[in-house]
Amino acid sequence: MAVNKQIVLDSRPTDKVSASHFRAVEAPMPKAGEGEFVVRQHYLSLDPYMRGRLSDAKSYAKPQEVGAVMGGGSVGEIVESKNPKFKVGDHVVGPGGWQMFAKGDGLGWNVVDASHIPLQAYVGVVGMPGATAWYGLNEIIKPKAGETVVVSAASGAVGGVVGQLAKLKGAKVVGIAGGKEKCGYVQGELGFDACVDHRSANFGDEMKAALPNGVDGLFENVGGEPFLQTLKRLNDFARIAICGLIASYEAAPTALPDMRIFLVRRIKIEGFIVSDHLNLWPKALGEIGGLVASGKLKYRETVREGLEAAPQGLVDLLSGGNFGKMLVKLV
Amino acid sequence: MAVNKQIVLDSRPTDKVSASHFRAVEAPMPKAGEGEFVVRQHYLSLDPYMRGRLSDAKSYAKPQEVGAVMGGGSVGEIVESKNPKFKVGDHVVGPGGWQMFAKGDGLGWNVVDASHIPLQAYVGVVGMPGATAWYGLNEIIKPKAGETVVVSAASGAVGGVVGQLAKLKGAKVVGIAGGKEKCGYVQGELGFDACVDHRSANFGDEMKAALPNGVDGLFENVGGEPFLQTLKRLNDFARIAICGLIASYEAAPTALPDMRIFLVRRIKIEGFIVSDHLNLWPKALGEIGGLVASGKLKYRETVREGLEAAPQGLVDLLSGGNFGKMLVKLV
Repeated sequence: MAVNKQIVLDSRPTDKVSASHFRAVEAPMPKAGEGEFVVRQHYLSLDPYMRGRLSDAKSYAKPQEVGAVMGGGSVGEIVESKNPKFKVGDHVVGPGGWQMFAKGDGLGWNVVDASHIPLQAYVGVVGMPGATAWYGLNEIIKPKAGETVVVSAASGAVGGVVGQLAKLKGAKVVGIAGGKEKCGYVQGELGFDACVDHRSANFGDEMKAALPNGVDGLFENVGGEPFLQTLKRLNDFARIAICGLIASYEAAPTALPDMRIFLVRRIKIEGFIVSDHLNLWPKALGEIGGLVASGKLKYRETVREGLEAAPQGLVDLLSGGNFGKMLVKLV
Repeated sequence: MAVNKQIVLDSRPTDKVSASHFRAVEAPMPKAGEGEFVVRQHYLSLDPYMRGRLSDAKSYAKPQEVGAVMGGGSVGEIVESKNPKFKVGDHVVGPGGWQMFAKGDGLGWNVVDASHIPLQAYVGVVGMPGATAWYGLNEIIKPKAGETVVVSAASGAVGGVVGQLAKLKGAKVVGIAGGKEKCGYVQGELGFDACVDHRSANFGDEMKAALPNGVDGLFENVGGEPFLQTLKRLNDFARIAICGLIASYEAAPTALPDMRIFLVRRIKIEGFIVSDHLNLWPKALGEIGGLVASGKLKYRETVREGLEAAPQGLVDLLSGGNFGKMLVKLV
């Protein structure tokens, strides 16, 4: 195999992203220079934050360059190495991007043990999404036993972990998800106390019914109507972790209509990006890894096949077309 | 003196409060029963939170009852006592309300030392407003040396203390106040690094000019345009303490137009009510009292004369007609 198939960003979306904003290209196979290694990639991770990087508006991450290989997390296996810390055959997780083979020098890459936990879980439940769930729940919401925690995008890679961790802390957990099937999974499989379908015509009434004791903690992944409905049910001293606002990434911004709620209810809202808190990942992922290995923490994956499926996979993820962690399987 | 002059709430304002919503009445002089005492009131405290209590909408405080003596903080002197902890001649601070004489049983009342600090300061800089400033600054904003802190209503009873405490911590402090005279006082007397007049036609540009390094902490007393202009200048990891939103108490709500700022900037916003944190008052007021007694912390008062001046005093306070702490002098 002399060529490396890649997908580059072809143009920036001005409104909704589509697969046509990307383009498949071929590049020479990477060769490891001194201190470098080559990864044969097994899975690409598709994540909502990627939408923000397609825009060149100011954000926390640098914009994705047009014409460059689309960035993103991945897992794979070292097939060539001139770096003593990465041996041929090692399984690794890192920023491999949308290509069949990635070259690294160690920065951002870690060797992982795929003997007890499936390799692709390292870009999911025991990777960035898991650390995200852990951080927002434990460092911002800090739920106490008996409190009520609401999680939006509850069947997603982050939301599913948030709810299960909150249940383990003795909280009552109410999920919000899109559609009956996802809600059934969230309540039946993941063990949330309730799940409300934000596509329901009676969404507001169903939220009220599901939250007889109000809301003490909100892990917000979505924004828009699910956020506004939850605001109405906040208890005094509620804590809100803003992790994502996927409903607004390609639509109108989510506004907070009246700041007086901060005074009337003494609310705390904090936005966070898990990569600001790398120091807590070992603790977070150690805890989650133990729960996954012992079967106490469940997760689900939507797997698309082949590199060329990545662009449409991202488009579908942004409209809720995934069920759990969205992955692209390469080998 | 056989009668006790009082001011009661006559009707609830639906829009802007005016003096006509109150009514002067006469009641029999209070007599101390067992465990009780009578306070001859010296000063009434007028505070922005009172506006919220005039409405019967859900808020953190119980609504003021129509027909009852208007509630509020006060200072005075014990003139009769059947409570061993409160002796005739003691100076006290407590919830005396808008009347010449108040009766207490001890709940909410404290004996204070008016020998080094003027009595009325116990409803100001060494009272609730001072504790409010201290809490929001030290428990929410937590400024580091070299950071920039913005304070709205900077010449007010709370704002003036916030800025001076932040300066003592090595922060750069920029005030926002209404009018040139207040801004001159905030910068010249209180020692803020800058003060921007929110009535200026070029308010936005002047904010930009005053904040070359952006904003790391915001102590928000006002809402409305001052808040929205400060939002534009926030740095990553900025902390916002929501103490008051006086611009919205009798006008349109202050909205936060786009929640994405929480993600892009990793912002924390927390609303607070200082009475939720009574455990910290001794620490806060001990620190502030020392600074006041040694002349290191300055404050200013606007004093209206006579009980009948209280209603219009409150009206004026809500439109910025005060300069520092707003008081009504009774004796």
